Amino acid sequence: MVYGEEICVQTKGFSDIVDLTAEVSRIVSRSKAKAGIVAVTAIGSTASVTTIEFEPALVEDFRDKLEEIASRDEATRHSQTWGDDNGFAHLRASLMGPGVCLPVVGGRPLLGTWQQIVLVDHDNRPRDRRVHVQVVGE
Amino acid sequence: MVYGEEICVQTKGFSDIVDLTAEVSRIVSRSKAKAGIVAVTAIGSTASVTTIEFEPALVEDFRDKLEEIASRDEATRHSQTWGDDNGFAHLRASLMGPGVCLPVVGGRPLLGTWQQIVLVDHDNRPRDRRVHVQVVGE
Amino acid sequence: MVYGEEICVQTKGFSDIVDLTAEVSRIVSRSKAKAGIVAVTAIGSTASVTTIEFEPALVEDFRDKLEEIASRDEATRHSQTWGDDNGFAHLRASLMGPGVCLPVVGGRPLLGTWQQIVLVDHDNRPRDRRVHVQVVGE
Repeated sequence: MVYGEEICVQTKGFSDIVDLTAEVSRIVSRSKAKAGIVAVTAIGSTASVTTIEFEPALVEDFRDKLEEIASRDEATRHSQTWGDDNGFAHLRASLMGPGVCLPVVGGRPLLGTWQQIVLVDHDNRPRDRRVHVQVVGE
Repeated sequence: MVYGEEICVQTKGFSDIVDLTAEVSRIVSRSKAKAGIVAVTAIGSTASVTTIEFEPALVEDFRDKLEEIASRDEATRHSQTWGDDNGFAHLRASLMGPGVCLPVVGGRPLLGTWQQIVLVDHDNRPRDRRVHVQVVGE
Repeated sequence: MVYGEEICVQTKGFSDIVDLTAEVSRIVSRSKAKAGIVAVTAIGSTASVTTIEFEPALVEDFRDKLEEIASRDEATRHSQTWGDDNGFAHLRASLMGPGVCLPVVGGRPLLGTWQQIVLVDHDNRPRDRRVHVQVVGE
């Protein structure tokens, strides 16, 4: 059985991090799958989905780390060529990848107690971002 | 068809790397799936699953690289706020992601000759870690 | 339903980046799956699959970033032990992971307009590389 839905998220850019856990759990619940896999995927080349302990201090730490790995001030050929100044966002996204794949157990995405599913929008401006949630199971 | 099991692993922390390949292969075998996908996922926000050539020299190199990317000595807001000193472990885990998804072909996870599936436990202490192995296939 | 094929790619090494989107789309089409998940996975421990806006400036930026994260000139225990000088390639591959898992919607892998699926071959020489494409769906 396959069931899919999209989540629409308003983001602020610069690796803005948004907790998707409740919405993903609702979609898994609506899928009626008791066991399987759920793929949570950011659509586009400047965003990622990962898991994190979603608490404000760590969220800031993670944004700082991404800034350290690929700074918004870094000159890139991409920004110079296209003039959109978001080369750094592409680099962060391609390093982290667009999504995560998690097990569905007992009708829910399996996560640790301090583990949430998040969208990380690396782009350099607010965006209406789409995240696809695909459940394959039974 | 969906089949899942958990692997329990005792780890030493600080990106301790443990080879899971034999155990994952046994679970895929017990699933009876000949073809499909296997998702191998660390439960929790301070561990990752990836693939590596599991030989001691490279394992040390990889731990050094993770130390370079997010040092255990680095001050983080997370550690300052919660006093558990493992902010670096969260950063490593969220960068790498919690798991991998591999094809199942001929009743086995498809890997290269020099490629193993490993748990990387980034946390700053020994832990009893759970890794979920979910097979979807036929 | 499960359907799998391998793509064979000739690569130049040093994080050579090759667009796989058209070939993955053809395989998803041949699978006849309308909805599901597609796992695109590099076989081996020195290559990765991710998504990127596949345009030449960004491709160069990304290769530079990988060089910054794990330089080809960096001394590694792996290279010293085995004499194959590709320790850096293993580090890049294990950080990024071997593959991506994307939703299949309407018989196609779901991607943004400026988002392509790519193989990144980190190894230090030309290779004939195999990428497995596994579709699970209905």
